[in-house]
Amino acid sequence: MNKNNKNFQDQIVPLRDNIDSIDSQILSLLARRQAQVENVVALKKAHGIPVYHPAREEDLISKLRLQSQNNGLDPDFMEDLYRVILRQSRVKQTQKMEHKGVRPNAKVLVIGGAGQMGGLFAGLFIKSGYEVRILSAQDWDHAQALCLEVDLVLISVPIENTLQVIEKISPLLPPKAVLADLTSVKKEPVSQMLLNHTGPVLGVHPLFGPTLSCLDKQIIVVTQGRDEAACQWFTEQLSLWGAVIVESTPDEHDEIMEIVQSLRHFVTFCFGEFLCHRRAKLARTLEFSSPIYRLELGMVGRLFAQDSALYAEIIFATPERRALLKEFILSLGRHVDMLENNDKQLFIDQFKRVAQWFGPFSDQAMRESTFLIDKLIERF
Amino acid sequence: MNKNNKNFQDQIVPLRDNIDSIDSQILSLLARRQAQVENVVALKKAHGIPVYHPAREEDLISKLRLQSQNNGLDPDFMEDLYRVILRQSRVKQTQKMEHKGVRPNAKVLVIGGAGQMGGLFAGLFIKSGYEVRILSAQDWDHAQALCLEVDLVLISVPIENTLQVIEKISPLLPPKAVLADLTSVKKEPVSQMLLNHTGPVLGVHPLFGPTLSCLDKQIIVVTQGRDEAACQWFTEQLSLWGAVIVESTPDEHDEIMEIVQSLRHFVTFCFGEFLCHRRAKLARTLEFSSPIYRLELGMVGRLFAQDSALYAEIIFATPERRALLKEFILSLGRHVDMLENNDKQLFIDQFKRVAQWFGPFSDQAMRESTFLIDKLIERF
Repeated sequence: MNKNNKNFQDQIVPLRDNIDSIDSQILSLLARRQAQVENVVALKKAHGIPVYHPAREEDLISKLRLQSQNNGLDPDFMEDLYRVILRQSRVKQTQKMEHKGVRPNAKVLVIGGAGQMGGLFAGLFIKSGYEVRILSAQDWDHAQALCLEVDLVLISVPIENTLQVIEKISPLLPPKAVLADLTSVKKEPVSQMLLNHTGPVLGVHPLFGPTLSCLDKQIIVVTQGRDEAACQWFTEQLSLWGAVIVESTPDEHDEIMEIVQSLRHFVTFCFGEFLCHRRAKLARTLEFSSPIYRLELGMVGRLFAQDSALYAEIIFATPERRALLKEFILSLGRHVDMLENNDKQLFIDQFKRVAQWFGPFSDQAMRESTFLIDKLIERF
Repeated sequence: MNKNNKNFQDQIVPLRDNIDSIDSQILSLLARRQAQVENVVALKKAHGIPVYHPAREEDLISKLRLQSQNNGLDPDFMEDLYRVILRQSRVKQTQKMEHKGVRPNAKVLVIGGAGQMGGLFAGLFIKSGYEVRILSAQDWDHAQALCLEVDLVLISVPIENTLQVIEKISPLLPPKAVLADLTSVKKEPVSQMLLNHTGPVLGVHPLFGPTLSCLDKQIIVVTQGRDEAACQWFTEQLSLWGAVIVESTPDEHDEIMEIVQSLRHFVTFCFGEFLCHRRAKLARTLEFSSPIYRLELGMVGRLFAQDSALYAEIIFATPERRALLKEFILSLGRHVDMLENNDKQLFIDQFKRVAQWFGPFSDQAMRESTFLIDKLIERF
């Protein structure tokens, strides 16, 4: 080690020790903060007050941004940091709250409760103090006993079995039991439930995968079938677990899902399949990749990391979906002339028309994705 | 206000005051931390030592994760938090470093330096102490004077003007001047530069938009043309500004960009254009949207928030690109039968084949995008 280098080491070590000491103090303040937040949650629970308070969060952020400027810190940095802290305290709060049952001790039968999505809901019901029963494919001999005095039946089986399961279970149900399904289509299952069960009926579609640990801010679409009042406690329970409930009709739901689930995944499939077909140099393209390309290719890679049968079910679910996808493929033929003629002006005209149609969402998307790209750069 | 409510207010106010006081302490510690980091940067600069030290970052994270567990804090939460803090301190460090010039006072001519991308580079060169000259479309009468004793000429004009600009500027250059372009294709511009200029030639393609404020971790592809040694100081300067340099050949670069820029954006264009064509209920689909759908549609919206002429240029840039896009459209015809026959098994087979081809990238993409989805939920 030469003299200059030793000199440098002598000077940098105390600075690094200072930083380490500051970090320890920050850490112990965060632990104290967490303890205080837990006291707030306990107090709110005791008074039956909802724990998540967006207004207070935004007030806090505004105040901290102002304080940051006065302390020579970047306000955006401070906001990023506190979004992480507030998110953590919200997760903590939700973990504590989600145990609360709207109708504890009510009897819930989950058909397909040994599967992933069924298992997720069964687990939530158990934590919240419900009496949970599971009916798997091999349990149909005991179905009668499992249905005894049941308050809610939740069907979580593959799409192609849903209609048949509804037909089999309905005659065994008490007339007052709420019958609900978790299928990603709603028209046929809801009709089938209304046809076979005389009591309350609710169509439910959770818009998330089964690998979550909590429902915080996750969206669940609910389509009313029959006797909304009798189904109310169940949707309240979903809200209490942190989910955001979106009301729809089976028709509207299915029309929107043609786009959101079928077309979107199919476009991604086509892109991935063509890359594979062309034997594109995937690894090398990633070395060349801007964060946004990495993110977009990541969306494609993500699809193919998942269950092929599940996506076949989702994409091919209904004749309407398959017709839409065929229409998509055939409509692309319109672009062949544009490419052959190198007609940039036509492209620009179409581009502008679409941009206008997208409207303010485009700018919002730009802001949101820029935020995410920053996160991605930060991480890797 | 009833008694119970008053009671609650009496109890919650001191708890909230405690939290506010903890937050103020955290903030002042962060300000002190920032000051210490600035001291470290100054010391490193004085000793000519690179400021970013990944190993020290990872050590710090490991130590904090351990301390978190001992303090009842979630280690993942603490890691997330410190990634934000370290990112901020890295940005601060890079902002300080990027001023450093490898060859300060060297003369840099930016052709198209009044445009967005040219302006970005002109600004960086100025900050780093270079003598920067700008040549805009109306300045060609003074081109001879602007080229006098110039050390680097950087061409940042629209693709369709690049070849012509190279032809016009080259005869005016000193033989030792480095000639470089920023075009998003490399084969033709690099050939043209080699043909017209006898001195050092470098093809450069920054893989990012011109709206950045710093180059931290941004990728720049460099293709050597002639006299690598003479171009070295320029690529070193790019690295010092924080960019990651990827070496390639013009042929490989263009082949990869056919996928990364042309095909990818065209697929997005087709999806957006079809949504518009079908008049999909965009706003309502967003209300139904899971974070991942929001992110994917955001990628589409993002495209249409940008400049249509720029994307026409990128997508239609070469006959090879247009041929690839045509091949993509025609190849989709293969899927029509699969849809008409409701052939889920064929879909599953193809899906699995693509998944295998994607290999470990799929799982990585799943992890990365899950991380981002969490960030998105956290923010909104």
